[in-house]
Amino acid sequence: MIKQGTGRVFAAFAFVWLIAAAPLAVAQDPLPSWNNGASKQAIVAFVARVTKAGTPDFVPVPQRIATFDNDGTLWVEQPIYTQFAFAFDRVKLLAAGHPEWKNTEPFASLIDGDIERALAGGEEALVQVLAATHAGMTTESYDRIAREWLKTKRDARFKREYSKLVYQPMLELLNYLRANGFKTFIVSGGGVEFIRAYAEEAYGIPPEQVIGSSGRLKYQMRGDVPELLKLPAVDVVNDKDGKVVSIQKVIGRRPIAAFGNSDGDLQMLEWTAAGKGARLALLVHHDDAAREWAYDRGSKIGGLDKALDAAIAKKWVVVSMKDDWNTILPK
Amino acid sequence: MIKQGTGRVFAAFAFVWLIAAAPLAVAQDPLPSWNNGASKQAIVAFVARVTKAGTPDFVPVPQRIATFDNDGTLWVEQPIYTQFAFAFDRVKLLAAGHPEWKNTEPFASLIDGDIERALAGGEEALVQVLAATHAGMTTESYDRIAREWLKTKRDARFKREYSKLVYQPMLELLNYLRANGFKTFIVSGGGVEFIRAYAEEAYGIPPEQVIGSSGRLKYQMRGDVPELLKLPAVDVVNDKDGKVVSIQKVIGRRPIAAFGNSDGDLQMLEWTAAGKGARLALLVHHDDAAREWAYDRGSKIGGLDKALDAAIAKKWVVVSMKDDWNTILPK
Repeated sequence: MIKQGTGRVFAAFAFVWLIAAAPLAVAQDPLPSWNNGASKQAIVAFVARVTKAGTPDFVPVPQRIATFDNDGTLWVEQPIYTQFAFAFDRVKLLAAGHPEWKNTEPFASLIDGDIERALAGGEEALVQVLAATHAGMTTESYDRIAREWLKTKRDARFKREYSKLVYQPMLELLNYLRANGFKTFIVSGGGVEFIRAYAEEAYGIPPEQVIGSSGRLKYQMRGDVPELLKLPAVDVVNDKDGKVVSIQKVIGRRPIAAFGNSDGDLQMLEWTAAGKGARLALLVHHDDAAREWAYDRGSKIGGLDKALDAAIAKKWVVVSMKDDWNTILPK
Repeated sequence: MIKQGTGRVFAAFAFVWLIAAAPLAVAQDPLPSWNNGASKQAIVAFVARVTKAGTPDFVPVPQRIATFDNDGTLWVEQPIYTQFAFAFDRVKLLAAGHPEWKNTEPFASLIDGDIERALAGGEEALVQVLAATHAGMTTESYDRIAREWLKTKRDARFKREYSKLVYQPMLELLNYLRANGFKTFIVSGGGVEFIRAYAEEAYGIPPEQVIGSSGRLKYQMRGDVPELLKLPAVDVVNDKDGKVVSIQKVIGRRPIAAFGNSDGDLQMLEWTAAGKGARLALLVHHDDAAREWAYDRGSKIGGLDKALDAAIAKKWVVVSMKDDWNTILPK
């Protein structure tokens, strides 16, 4: 009897202990999709340094600014940028109202489904497509259309909605930084309104913390209702030097941590790393063809040359998707 | 004995009650510098409506965006915009290095201290002064210079630092909104970097929540140190229609409350008020020459014509500084 009683008490204690320990165990590893290794250690060590009050590297909460590139850093960017997939779909959908497109490039090729031929026209062709699909409507109409597409359209390889082609380890990193008082921003070459259409739900990043490229807007009255019309004219190109300029214009403070994956992020990482005190500059290196894609030097999308050289020379963190991440996409 | 005992117990209770009631009393009036009247009641009623969960007008916290004009809405803008006072001081300070200014307008007049004559050249003269005083240096140098001036220079009438020429009732309003889950933004025609130099300390508004006019920036390397150079070229003019465009570009969400004082704020209030659900559009009316200034229709600075007509027609809140505010500047 006594033995049985002790057993019961022990079992009860063990149960309570398990319940209590469970959240503790989770708290002990906020980055479960990151394998233990130099990259994860560098991230955790950096966060520990800047959050420890009373030490020289301590950074007050309002100055804990972290900026993230989007395509290829937070979500998949191959085989084409998702925003382009959206634009090409729009061309097909709008084709009925544009009979002239049948004989006009790049539209004719896009209607035929030949993206490569359409893109042979280079930047000019792209600007034409963006003007035809991203302008001539109000900001509210565009937002509705983009949200609908992002929620329903599935990509060919992973067979899931684009808004779920985000990297699980980066979601954990975003949460980990926010839990440590960081304000997380997206600083992307992509269109700001396209990213905003899914960023809050997918990343927990509100629209006012999304910085991207943008076209000109016109404020006008339709009857007595004001509206913002999207014009077919480029305003901000948020890439390379442009990322640093936008960070200053919109955030007004130099980040202490920056995350990218291509040469378009070089200046943002450089600017971040050059500030005083502890800094974290990190590149995601796509080296996992089996689970995602493998590309770097010379790639048309997400090309990584100069930024990889800089990362090696300056000892920035280079994340190997293959070795550092045990999971790529969320379950 | 019994009586004395009862008295002691009563006294002890009363003491506890006083301690407990003291913070409660403060919480009961978060806007002590606002007299009871229609303006204060409209503000409090609006906040109550949008924060009451389960009602049709409830607005989730992330959508509680409030935008404030700066000059004349949050701080004094007469007899000249503070940023111009700063620029004119800079001209005098830099004059020694520019002997040619002695014979060139508008600089010659500014060196003589004749602001009216200097401004006779209109907008072109102003752009020249801003180019000479707000460009040709890094963003960090400019920030240092502006902060120093704002902390030390005193205005002629109120004999206090410009950074203390902020309106006490508006400070209370900012705090009140933030305590109710609002995110407060400045959306000003003034230079974004000038406002950021004092906004965090004076208003509790961090740099990333300040939107203003801005010049072009150039990212460049000085040796191996990156820097952002301020160029003498206007980029964003954040006034009138431009305020709505900037709100969309930077915040990406329509405000539910907007605060202004001049025709430059008309479109921002119009855009805010035209959204669905409960909205607050408010104009500060400068009608108190004794304690501050009195101006509206036809005023060169802070002119209030069309916006006042719109406010009357659309029943926006018009704050009388004379009647609605029992205090103007902080103690």
